[in-house]
Amino acid sequence: MNALAQESEAALASRLLDGFARISADVEGFTRPAYSAVETACLELVEEAGRARGLVAHRDAVGNAWLAPPGLDGAAPACGSHIDSVPRGGNFDGAAGVVAGLVCALRAAREGWPLRALVLRGEESPWFGQPHLGARAAFGAITAAELATSRRDTGRTLAEHMADVDADPALASGGRPLPEVLATTALHELHIEQGPELVERGLAACAVGSVRGHIRWSRAACVGEAGHSGTVPRHLRRDPAMAVAELLVELDQLWARSMQEGADLVVTTGMLSIAAESASPTRIPDRVAFSLDVRSSQHETLLAMEAAVERACQGIGARRGVRFALGPLVRTAPVSLDRAAVARLEAALPGIVLNSGAGHDAAEFMRRGVPGAMVFVRNRHGSHNPQEAMELDDLMHGIDAMHTALRAAA
Amino acid sequence: MNALAQESEAALASRLLDGFARISADVEGFTRPAYSAVETACLELVEEAGRARGLVAHRDAVGNAWLAPPGLDGAAPACGSHIDSVPRGGNFDGAAGVVAGLVCALRAAREGWPLRALVLRGEESPWFGQPHLGARAAFGAITAAELATSRRDTGRTLAEHMADVDADPALASGGRPLPEVLATTALHELHIEQGPELVERGLAACAVGSVRGHIRWSRAACVGEAGHSGTVPRHLRRDPAMAVAELLVELDQLWARSMQEGADLVVTTGMLSIAAESASPTRIPDRVAFSLDVRSSQHETLLAMEAAVERACQGIGARRGVRFALGPLVRTAPVSLDRAAVARLEAALPGIVLNSGAGHDAAEFMRRGVPGAMVFVRNRHGSHNPQEAMELDDLMHGIDAMHTALRAAA
Repeated sequence: MNALAQESEAALASRLLDGFARISADVEGFTRPAYSAVETACLELVEEAGRARGLVAHRDAVGNAWLAPPGLDGAAPACGSHIDSVPRGGNFDGAAGVVAGLVCALRAAREGWPLRALVLRGEESPWFGQPHLGARAAFGAITAAELATSRRDTGRTLAEHMADVDADPALASGGRPLPEVLATTALHELHIEQGPELVERGLAACAVGSVRGHIRWSRAACVGEAGHSGTVPRHLRRDPAMAVAELLVELDQLWARSMQEGADLVVTTGMLSIAAESASPTRIPDRVAFSLDVRSSQHETLLAMEAAVERACQGIGARRGVRFALGPLVRTAPVSLDRAAVARLEAALPGIVLNSGAGHDAAEFMRRGVPGAMVFVRNRHGSHNPQEAMELDDLMHGIDAMHTALRAAA
Repeated sequence: MNALAQESEAALASRLLDGFARISADVEGFTRPAYSAVETACLELVEEAGRARGLVAHRDAVGNAWLAPPGLDGAAPACGSHIDSVPRGGNFDGAAGVVAGLVCALRAAREGWPLRALVLRGEESPWFGQPHLGARAAFGAITAAELATSRRDTGRTLAEHMADVDADPALASGGRPLPEVLATTALHELHIEQGPELVERGLAACAVGSVRGHIRWSRAACVGEAGHSGTVPRHLRRDPAMAVAELLVELDQLWARSMQEGADLVVTTGMLSIAAESASPTRIPDRVAFSLDVRSSQHETLLAMEAAVERACQGIGARRGVRFALGPLVRTAPVSLDRAAVARLEAALPGIVLNSGAGHDAAEFMRRGVPGAMVFVRNRHGSHNPQEAMELDDLMHGIDAMHTALRAAA
């Protein structure tokens, strides 16, 4: 590839990323809700760029975009990622892989081997409480309960939001993969690294070997009894705020011990609130809502943590006279990515193979029988926050490696 | 007093309490915001009842209501309480004492000795972050900063809400007591007990000896760094949720130890939240807002807790890479009520003298040089919650005792 073409791809990547940012800028960071007009506008930007360079853009029945050279009809690998973001997130989580998918598909079209770019919707879970909606919709694997789940800010259901963008809820939950998925032999996904390893090691990109699983309670609560802050003596309190604090500290201590024993583990409470309409500095709260997200690449660690959470809630509940209502539990098993593809990517990106702490669409495809592979690109400040910082040179380095590995397999 | 007059007073008390409930019923419990139309409507109900029985009702320049027999111009004691409530509170906190003030003033008028009923506004702190606004306004002791404080739900300032109900912010903050206060020789306040002592001891009412002081941080926060819940390893996290949990557990343990050593102490976090617009189960939060209310009848215990909170925040902040911003601290010293009045009330209500865990208008008057005295009436389920339960017989018993003590001093 000559220098001019390389520069032109980097300029295209840069222009697309700037475009996503412009469309989705929020008070701080960027907000591209799943199955929203903002998500659609970003998706259209990719489709326009592909069409302008000779690709055919096509929406599947659940609203994801596929781009391919004219005449590519049969089985082929795909390359892409998701275009939605968390509320007030960064500009590169998902979007970098969308750009990589388009650039790789353009190169493949030029070089005459089959590859489709894929732009998925709805990967992030804050919107409807569940991740990988766009990927699972393409497999017909959305549940009826999920379709009926309301987005917490709009109050409207996933089915309604899907219909807004011409995605068919019936096919999304039909139990059968769409034709586009049946014609997909593998999904390669480039993604910013969401942890600090590549920065610490001075590497621009790497292959990914596996994706952590998780257990997640998104709508847990602890219920006690309200009372005046000054007058209820210690021994008569049923204070859910102190109870949740004790739970978190107990889990934090267990986390520290587990890591000393070699476990792979992260524990996060990202939601925590006493309802504003009844909260007061002088009122013992009657209810604290919270979430709990536990991740590990080790199945046995997730099982042990699930038991530990339930045991801690029972013990603290009994001691403090409160009741934990943990609510729905979502379990996602750890996934090993496609061994042959990982080997090809590792050959193109020597140095290290990382495990992913976050879930990804490529792992969702892998889980459902379509080989998945991933490249991580160096990125500062983690993800899901406005300070995400990926450099264009690193993105292009990751794209080159993914292109090399895909061409080797073609 | 004959049985008919007694019954008629109980019927009046019951009718007034039912009227407050009707005016202020919320989704659950009762809401009578400080300096609101709801508060005014309750106040008018008392004024109408007083006028119908021959009293003259008068509003002072800061919106409080005073009721007296015609011709009572000079110095006299007052009897009353506040008519506002916390959000979704119970029906009796404040209101019971308002009814007691009216009944005692009617008896005094009948018997020919001087007493005014007083209905105060704005005693509860949730509305503008500070307690006893109506009482302090009558002393001209509201600060300019308080006048500029916005109510968190309306966004409008205390000065604006005061003006809504014809209370003069300039006089409320003028540094001089109103004429009505200068003519007040004592404030007697009946209030529901907000703890469980009278229920446990089987007593209908008792005298109050002192009022706990407090230290309160109403707008504290812990600031860390946002990140993806699955990818930031333990040693690189700056998680404010875990940090606040650790602070609460540390204070809880210190509380338990202090009580074993004989301290009088309660510790409450009534507000706790990760802002909804950025919260997600998969996002390490960057900020947790919380409140901290610490009460004791012992000055030295409050001083020790203040130092302990600051020390804990520094230690946890340094260990976890977060920063605690505790915000404005409000300190209210413990107050001993008027010794002679307590003795008279104790004579009328033998059995026990309790200390109040909550702040009260009578203590605010005492703090500012007007002798204050209080009666507690038995009440189940504490206060500041919809389950407050005071029985009418107990209220009438408390009123009888207060009437006896006031008449003895007259």
